[in-house]
Amino acid sequence: MLFKAGQSGRDLLKKDKPMLPESLGVYVAGLYLTVLTLFIPINYLGKANHSTLVSYLSALLSICCMILLGFVDDVLDLRWRDKVFLPAVASLPLLLVYFVNEGITYVTVPIPFREYFGNYIDLAIFCTNSINILAGINGLEVGQSVVIAIFIMLHNIIQIMLNISPQLCENNYFSLYMLIPFTTLSLTLLKYNWYPAKVFVGDTYCYFAGMTFAVVGILGHFSKTMMLFFLPQIFNFVFSVPQLFKMVPCPRHRMPNLNVTSGKLENSFAEFDLSEVNIIGLICIKILRALGLIDLKKAANEERVIISNFTILNSCLIWFGSLSERDLAKLMIFLQIFACLFGLSVRYGFSNLLY
Amino acid sequence: MLFKAGQSGRDLLKKDKPMLPESLGVYVAGLYLTVLTLFIPINYLGKANHSTLVSYLSALLSICCMILLGFVDDVLDLRWRDKVFLPAVASLPLLLVYFVNEGITYVTVPIPFREYFGNYIDLAIFCTNSINILAGINGLEVGQSVVIAIFIMLHNIIQIMLNISPQLCENNYFSLYMLIPFTTLSLTLLKYNWYPAKVFVGDTYCYFAGMTFAVVGILGHFSKTMMLFFLPQIFNFVFSVPQLFKMVPCPRHRMPNLNVTSGKLENSFAEFDLSEVNIIGLICIKILRALGLIDLKKAANEERVIISNFTILNSCLIWFGSLSERDLAKLMIFLQIFACLFGLSVRYGFSNLLY
Repeated sequence: MLFKAGQSGRDLLKKDKPMLPESLGVYVAGLYLTVLTLFIPINYLGKANHSTLVSYLSALLSICCMILLGFVDDVLDLRWRDKVFLPAVASLPLLLVYFVNEGITYVTVPIPFREYFGNYIDLAIFCTNSINILAGINGLEVGQSVVIAIFIMLHNIIQIMLNISPQLCENNYFSLYMLIPFTTLSLTLLKYNWYPAKVFVGDTYCYFAGMTFAVVGILGHFSKTMMLFFLPQIFNFVFSVPQLFKMVPCPRHRMPNLNVTSGKLENSFAEFDLSEVNIIGLICIKILRALGLIDLKKAANEERVIISNFTILNSCLIWFGSLSERDLAKLMIFLQIFACLFGLSVRYGFSNLLY
Repeated sequence: MLFKAGQSGRDLLKKDKPMLPESLGVYVAGLYLTVLTLFIPINYLGKANHSTLVSYLSALLSICCMILLGFVDDVLDLRWRDKVFLPAVASLPLLLVYFVNEGITYVTVPIPFREYFGNYIDLAIFCTNSINILAGINGLEVGQSVVIAIFIMLHNIIQIMLNISPQLCENNYFSLYMLIPFTTLSLTLLKYNWYPAKVFVGDTYCYFAGMTFAVVGILGHFSKTMMLFFLPQIFNFVFSVPQLFKMVPCPRHRMPNLNVTSGKLENSFAEFDLSEVNIIGLICIKILRALGLIDLKKAANEERVIISNFTILNSCLIWFGSLSERDLAKLMIFLQIFACLFGLSVRYGFSNLLY
């Protein structure tokens, strides 16, 4: 059905470049919304707490808006600079309701409106786009989301066991309600999206996953802790900045290339003249090269250089040599798990210093 | 942008059959959601009434789900028998929340669960699909929706002026909040969708409009009155039943045909052998022919007959002769206005007998 509607794409990192159905994320996301909707009477029937139901509904509404916008993006292929701000639009219901809700509960406390709004919109934009940027090989988008979700749930369980205050417990239970169905459904999707992928998940899934995390972080009041589980994404984003903001030339696709003979992935490169790059770009290249994150070679034409693209995937290929797509995906998942473990230990080991 | 994504269709009732962008409804619907979201702080900030905010959010969530499903349908072209039940899925958030909400407010009153649920799901399915069926010529979907919305608002204003009880007033204000932006945005869309159309609205719009009416009818507690404004849709649906349920052969498209020489619309026909039709079908044909609603002729091949399709559009062409597309659309809008006026007078003139 997706094929017929033109919702399909070529898997560029396979020898025969097969056509795969795209936007499978929209099914999973729809199923997720249905499950959470069916939870409403289970969780709230007979309880007099309207305030938490309001939060829950605003969360669903924001996720639903994000899925809608993500699917529109998949179908219409919006421009990059428009896409970045879709999560801001979708997070409006959540933020406005949160604001109204807090306004009712703590009406005496003046809320620093702009600062607080800005932070949370940033969170929504960051969560969605950082997952969307760290992508390009089979299973990576879904895999990293599952790992992050599992670590957030671990954090929630620890918090509930510490039992600091009833309000805190409730926030963490809320997060679990949201993430258990998310993880289950994502694992099912991962089965089909893992190498060799039978389906693509589309931008819809990245937006959906990112928005779910943002919602959980905002309403669960642990957005700072959550950032600790996004370390690879933060690193990848900062690393990408010189290319994303055109300080260094950026090709259309930055994912690794397939070496057809060996069947392994190799670095993809951007080729350009060093004189085209301004001083900031040159400094970036120098620093990143010194750190061993990028590879720089003279091109066949003596005056030009080729430089590996600024993504964490390319850096991994520099450090570990050529890898098959499956191995690179595994490596990235291990990296994510390692980073999340580090984040969790920072949260509970050094939290006195940070918070 | 919609063209590039394959979201376009031919306008079959024009001489040159131009390609027009489709699914424009999704923009309007998205804008509508944004406007209603921005209303949240205006309406609810500082008020302690969480219960109405819960209703409002569940309404937005249902409409958002419906838009998402409608757009998925536009892109994927779902089968007819799946489409019919999409509104039931989308109305779940509304109904479950309503149930929970009532459960809190009137917890002592046992609600006849199944009966009540069934009624409201029926309402959602009816409102969306009846608008979707009465379609096929430029401006008709949007035009009828605007007329219905205006009459519902008239009803609301009358109710508010009668000022029977504060609860009733609040319900009617709620309906106005929902319908004023809807009407404004639909009128803008109508400007581009009216003959000769520059855009198509897609199933997205029909679902969106129908769901908005269903939500307003359910939460405003005037679903029976609303049915009075849907008389042409009810008539068209009942009239279509013999073809929809295959008692009489049903061609792929049932909208009128264009006579290229005169530039006017003429009846479209289904051709078949009378012996193919079972006894129920024959009775339907006999009754409808006696009422002058359908036209039956001998086909060129003596053994077969041709029969005008069972839609209100075809009946109008029988009564009034060939009409241009613009005139037929105008006629239908007048019919809708007339039917709504009749409905309104029934509601206020004979309400003692009916309610």
